[in-house]
Amino acid sequence: MQASHTATDDAQAGFRNALVAAGLLIPTGVDGLYGRSGVFEEVVERFNDLITSWGRDDGAEVMRFPPALARHHFERSEYLKSFPQLAGTVHSFKGDERAHQTLLRRLEEGEEWTDGQMATNVVMTPAACYPIYPTVAERGPLGDDGALVDVYSYCFRHEPSLDPARMQLFRMREYVRVGTPDQVMDFRQSWLERGRALMESLGVPLAVDVANDPFFGRAGRMLAANQRDQGLKFELLIPITSEEKPTACLSFNYHQDHFGLLWDIRTPDGAVAHTACVGFGMERVALALFRHHGFDVRAWPGSVRAALWG
Amino acid sequence: MQASHTATDDAQAGFRNALVAAGLLIPTGVDGLYGRSGVFEEVVERFNDLITSWGRDDGAEVMRFPPALARHHFERSEYLKSFPQLAGTVHSFKGDERAHQTLLRRLEEGEEWTDGQMATNVVMTPAACYPIYPTVAERGPLGDDGALVDVYSYCFRHEPSLDPARMQLFRMREYVRVGTPDQVMDFRQSWLERGRALMESLGVPLAVDVANDPFFGRAGRMLAANQRDQGLKFELLIPITSEEKPTACLSFNYHQDHFGLLWDIRTPDGAVAHTACVGFGMERVALALFRHHGFDVRAWPGSVRAALWG
Repeated sequence: MQASHTATDDAQAGFRNALVAAGLLIPTGVDGLYGRSGVFEEVVERFNDLITSWGRDDGAEVMRFPPALARHHFERSEYLKSFPQLAGTVHSFKGDERAHQTLLRRLEEGEEWTDGQMATNVVMTPAACYPIYPTVAERGPLGDDGALVDVYSYCFRHEPSLDPARMQLFRMREYVRVGTPDQVMDFRQSWLERGRALMESLGVPLAVDVANDPFFGRAGRMLAANQRDQGLKFELLIPITSEEKPTACLSFNYHQDHFGLLWDIRTPDGAVAHTACVGFGMERVALALFRHHGFDVRAWPGSVRAALWG
Repeated sequence: MQASHTATDDAQAGFRNALVAAGLLIPTGVDGLYGRSGVFEEVVERFNDLITSWGRDDGAEVMRFPPALARHHFERSEYLKSFPQLAGTVHSFKGDERAHQTLLRRLEEGEEWTDGQMATNVVMTPAACYPIYPTVAERGPLGDDGALVDVYSYCFRHEPSLDPARMQLFRMREYVRVGTPDQVMDFRQSWLERGRALMESLGVPLAVDVANDPFFGRAGRMLAANQRDQGLKFELLIPITSEEKPTACLSFNYHQDHFGLLWDIRTPDGAVAHTACVGFGMERVALALFRHHGFDVRAWPGSVRAALWG
């Protein structure tokens, strides 16, 4: 059944068109794939610096990964179990000159040509923290302080949408904590409070609520319900194109021992490590700021400008 | 025939291992795919700011695109004609729950599972300037000043290599000029001089030479020879792991009317626009700096630190 056209669809398309008309987003003809103007990027960069200033005293180790991860790491991550529909594998042409001629002919004649592409060893990063777990595991048992990592990368999710706040390629900044259950829960609680205060300093309406990930299929519905019941995921929500369905701009995730077991990460006493992360949706926060303070950043409230431009 | 193992291979592997041991690069188990440490990133960021300071007076328009472009733009770009072996298409799972079970079983049993992935409308960006041409074309005829665009993105090229200076995912900063042949040639000449001066301020040995792109196949060899004969491509080369085969760190490209014709970009008098670009290989420059000034940025020469940290 075709999903019915709703007021939310109109609001999303309207906001997207306004962003494009203002030059903040550059359309590409593919839903969820946009260029950004210099002003849009400056807002993202200033917000990124603001996160750094709130997190600085924690002494996180900075790691920066490209927007893709190793396929063997991706395959082991169990992402395909939960979110097969969102993942993006990178494929290449591996043929000879004859195969190349065939490819070009099919392209020229408007035929399907992509089915000859072969998977590479590279998979799009679905969340900024995915490359971290094997990296931390590789180092051997944790020290008493566990690990705290600062990551930031473009991520891909295959979910074309009219909603400018649901891009196929978007940036996620994260802090990732690896350690004992106490260390990890303390980290998440601290960021639940800091995340709220940080966003309040930007003068946007917000609420924090329990949430779930978009698990695939029928079995996924049970996983989602379980995640909510256990309070494993919270989101900081800001209305962007809908008051009723505000947009998740930050998320606070407790993975329990999921990644610790997968990657065999151990605390000093030999127990399986727990992990948690706080994630900032950079484009979503920028869009929330443009939505609530207008498209002209010079006219934003003084307190918001002070928070971002210092 | 297997390529023979050379001294260059050893030098490349040795430099890579040293970078990994120093923590500057984080291995992933896939050649050409690395994480970067905070220090590595800081060098890239400072170099990026240095480029901006050299280009600032030109008043380029800043555009930032994700590391992928629209498939319909990619297909029209003729990249597949010249470099099919380097391109990366992004594929996703589009099946139902039954297909999902099959996928998971194949993954579990170590079988090939990626052949069920279907192409999305997203293709990895092969060079930072590719999304620019359709964007400029979409705006209609150029004004008298043409267009000058500042772009920066991660790029993908499927060429796994031991050489840390040949990554599969790397960043390219570019200025792109669109206009009359005179405007475009003036731009390229100006950046040939500025690029040399900019890199000399960083205290690295360098040479500028004519070059060609890695065109595919036998026909490609003729294209490459033609490109060299016409002086369409110059590279600024810095020895990183080999004196005999220095690494191209900047490139200065005159495309003549190639992109103007493809995208129907016109100058005010109705002629097909010409284009040129200067590209900075951000990881390659960072690697050249680490190679020539050492892994401890605090011990770099004062003049280099002054150029980067101001």
